[in-house]
Amino acid sequence: MPALDLSVSSVDLTRTICDIPSVSDDETTLADAIFEAVSALGHLDVYRDGDTIVARTNLGRPQRVALAGHIDTVPINGNLPVRDIEIDGQPYLWGRGTVDMKGGVAVQLTLAAELIAPRVDITWLWYDHEEVDAERNGLTRLARTRPDLFAADFAILGEPSNGNVEGGCNGNLRAIARTHGVRAHSARSWMGENAIHAAAPILARLAEYRAREVPVEGLVYREGLNAVRIGGGVAGNVIPDLCEVEVNYRFAPSRTLDEAERHVRSALEGFDVEIVDRAAGARPGLDAPLAQEFLAAVGAEPRPKYGWTDVARFSALGVPAVNYGPGDPSLAHHDEERVSYAQIEDVERGLREWLTA
Amino acid sequence: MPALDLSVSSVDLTRTICDIPSVSDDETTLADAIFEAVSALGHLDVYRDGDTIVARTNLGRPQRVALAGHIDTVPINGNLPVRDIEIDGQPYLWGRGTVDMKGGVAVQLTLAAELIAPRVDITWLWYDHEEVDAERNGLTRLARTRPDLFAADFAILGEPSNGNVEGGCNGNLRAIARTHGVRAHSARSWMGENAIHAAAPILARLAEYRAREVPVEGLVYREGLNAVRIGGGVAGNVIPDLCEVEVNYRFAPSRTLDEAERHVRSALEGFDVEIVDRAAGARPGLDAPLAQEFLAAVGAEPRPKYGWTDVARFSALGVPAVNYGPGDPSLAHHDEERVSYAQIEDVERGLREWLTA
Repeated sequence: MPALDLSVSSVDLTRTICDIPSVSDDETTLADAIFEAVSALGHLDVYRDGDTIVARTNLGRPQRVALAGHIDTVPINGNLPVRDIEIDGQPYLWGRGTVDMKGGVAVQLTLAAELIAPRVDITWLWYDHEEVDAERNGLTRLARTRPDLFAADFAILGEPSNGNVEGGCNGNLRAIARTHGVRAHSARSWMGENAIHAAAPILARLAEYRAREVPVEGLVYREGLNAVRIGGGVAGNVIPDLCEVEVNYRFAPSRTLDEAERHVRSALEGFDVEIVDRAAGARPGLDAPLAQEFLAAVGAEPRPKYGWTDVARFSALGVPAVNYGPGDPSLAHHDEERVSYAQIEDVERGLREWLTA
Repeated sequence: MPALDLSVSSVDLTRTICDIPSVSDDETTLADAIFEAVSALGHLDVYRDGDTIVARTNLGRPQRVALAGHIDTVPINGNLPVRDIEIDGQPYLWGRGTVDMKGGVAVQLTLAAELIAPRVDITWLWYDHEEVDAERNGLTRLARTRPDLFAADFAILGEPSNGNVEGGCNGNLRAIARTHGVRAHSARSWMGENAIHAAAPILARLAEYRAREVPVEGLVYREGLNAVRIGGGVAGNVIPDLCEVEVNYRFAPSRTLDEAERHVRSALEGFDVEIVDRAAGARPGLDAPLAQEFLAAVGAEPRPKYGWTDVARFSALGVPAVNYGPGDPSLAHHDEERVSYAQIEDVERGLREWLTA
């Protein structure tokens, strides 16, 4: 494949890198192209670990900002190659990855090439396996092998945020609530105990649950406690002895993991509850001086980020982090994924102005 | 394989035919053996359709009795060949099919060979595919192609009944109740509607449901309305838009199919309910003169049959029918399936005395 030309517009670069498919587990071709292109620049120290690439300026600035973006996408579903479309007279790039998140990555690559002397030192991170298990995420690996590369005073993740600044993120916990019974032939149901019937109060409590809205550092995080899966049953003529309800709790970043777990256990008190996965949220961190400067520069009213994103990794390492990228997050993973030229250009402009001010 | 010797004891014959595996779809070897053995007898007109064999006396008796048994079993699970065991000093045959229902079939084969001049004409029916979908049942096929072969004044099915006479059977209906919602990312759950939560009242109603006990012709049928399966969920981070609850209704034979369906729809009123399968029950039919004589001859206090059995096919054709066979029905399909010699011999004696009185 031809070398990536980082001097084209970020819209053109978005199109180019979307047309290099990089579904999770298949990022190497794109990672190779990025590695070659940034290695050729000269003003960046480049480090590669698998398909994760870190490129840093080392200008001796008093402050350092990390800018990160994942290069993988969810599977293609007939939505590549990228098409140019128009909506309400505005030009858009349509196709897999345009929103989540190659538009953001293209802006970062453009600026990485262009900003030879930014006002802060910059660590660019492009990483693999964000769309799959956290265990396989390139940042998880890097945090284990090279935590020093995360060192920064502020971090910006290019995840789609409609060009707004979304601070921090909610935490995420998954639990399984189980009810138990006794199997019997359904023709003699009184010989058994129906575990599915026993799940009625679990669903009733979830249906009645009123989620909190929690202000954290000026942003209001909206929570949620939901059944996301239910399963039970042995055969059409058997009283079932087990029912499982998978529950997903999204919680404000002011709540610790242990508090979140206690909350779920209390909401499902009386039932057999197993916590199967938990990830802390990230406080918005917008009181950091660099964050304040950034907000002022891009002229944005910060909003809370509801979904969990990798900002939480930076937050956990003590680096305040926000989401700022082109694309409507509700179109991420969508078959009609598309981003307007204008949002890509706005984010590019916002970052450039702040990083060179 | 050697020809079946029908002159041995019914206990020995049970052992022999259990050791000819005949899991549903694999009945041909046993059907061949039965067909050859009864064809050689001379006093029976033998008809074969697939793996179903019908053998009839034609003595011009004023009355005819049908005696039927299925020759297939549920899958073997390390419980063949048959073993002789002792429980509380009593000898048992242990293994797949001993209860459901080769003990009953062996008694029938023994008597088919022995009773050259019974006091009523007899139609013996041994059939395939009882343990699978009703559509594949040998009697379903026969009722379509040769309904004349069902003609009888009374029918006895050799299904395990602990040597008791179990009259008629409950009806059986399966329905699926569905709740609908709107998908959304679980990080923004307020954008969706949770279909699993919406199923709470279905489970609550089923949990609160008190099943009737219904006297029919002197026998008390116990009903049941149960969730036998539940399923819902798209992914761990998605608010589900569909939840399905499979409900099984077992109803007294005094209730018609339409009444049963109305009852289920009323119990689940307000929900999207699809009836997926329904089979009428069978009234006990114990007021038929031949039934009364039979009860008197075997000295049995009749009981209701809770599970659906093929007696309902005879009942639907206007033939009163009961279940009468060796073996504890609660051990049917069990890995420890076993039957006492004594029950096989008792049932053999009961049938012989009545058929020759």
